[in-house]
Amino acid sequence: MSEVADSAVRKFQKELNAGTVALVLLSVLRRSKEPLYGYQIAKRLEETESSGMAIKQGTLYPVLRSLEAQGLLSSRVEPSVSGPPRKYYSITGDGIEVLGAWTEVWRKTRAFVETTLEGGR
Amino acid sequence: MSEVADSAVRKFQKELNAGTVALVLLSVLRRSKEPLYGYQIAKRLEETESSGMAIKQGTLYPVLRSLEAQGLLSSRVEPSVSGPPRKYYSITGDGIEVLGAWTEVWRKTRAFVETTLEGGR
Repeated sequence: MSEVADSAVRKFQKELNAGTVALVLLSVLRRSKEPLYGYQIAKRLEETESSGMAIKQGTLYPVLRSLEAQGLLSSRVEPSVSGPPRKYYSITGDGIEVLGAWTEVWRKTRAFVETTLEGGR
Repeated sequence: MSEVADSAVRKFQKELNAGTVALVLLSVLRRSKEPLYGYQIAKRLEETESSGMAIKQGTLYPVLRSLEAQGLLSSRVEPSVSGPPRKYYSITGDGIEVLGAWTEVWRKTRAFVETTLEGGR
């Protein structure tokens, strides 16, 4: 791929990730029976990676912090026997409401992009 | 919707638009037989709006400029009989290559998000 194309692809993936990673994190925490810390979330996402998408663990942390700052997640820190303390995240009531609304936005955007790509016009 | 949720939804839509609007614009210009100016592109997108997605015309212009700065579109300005000169955009060779790669990234991301939302995990 040319250098121009390569840089454009990285930019696009980064932009697409900005919203979708947050959506995916809320969704994983919505379905979890107990609070999860970063590494556990990364593990659950890895199991989905057969689809070819790789989300690096380093990508998760800023998004988790941003979701907490928005009031969509809450967290508590607990000591770990095997290393530094762990920060466990749970979804909040606002987070559950927002996940529903985001899912709706996602579905509409997806339909719009698909229609355009398939090229009715 | 609560104020928290409302603000989170606006943020999410904005983030999702960042990548998808660029993808949609490249796709429309790829399929067009002739160069198009902003208003014409907006019109073509409006026809797809039955899907419930509205892209405001004001959203298009910065994305068109960014795509041109990345070398994915080229433009020429032509006088108009009915108003100010119009800037006509065409897709470049790099743009065609990038559209293919973006479409692939889009499909993988979409599959990943869908799998997670449907909740295998």
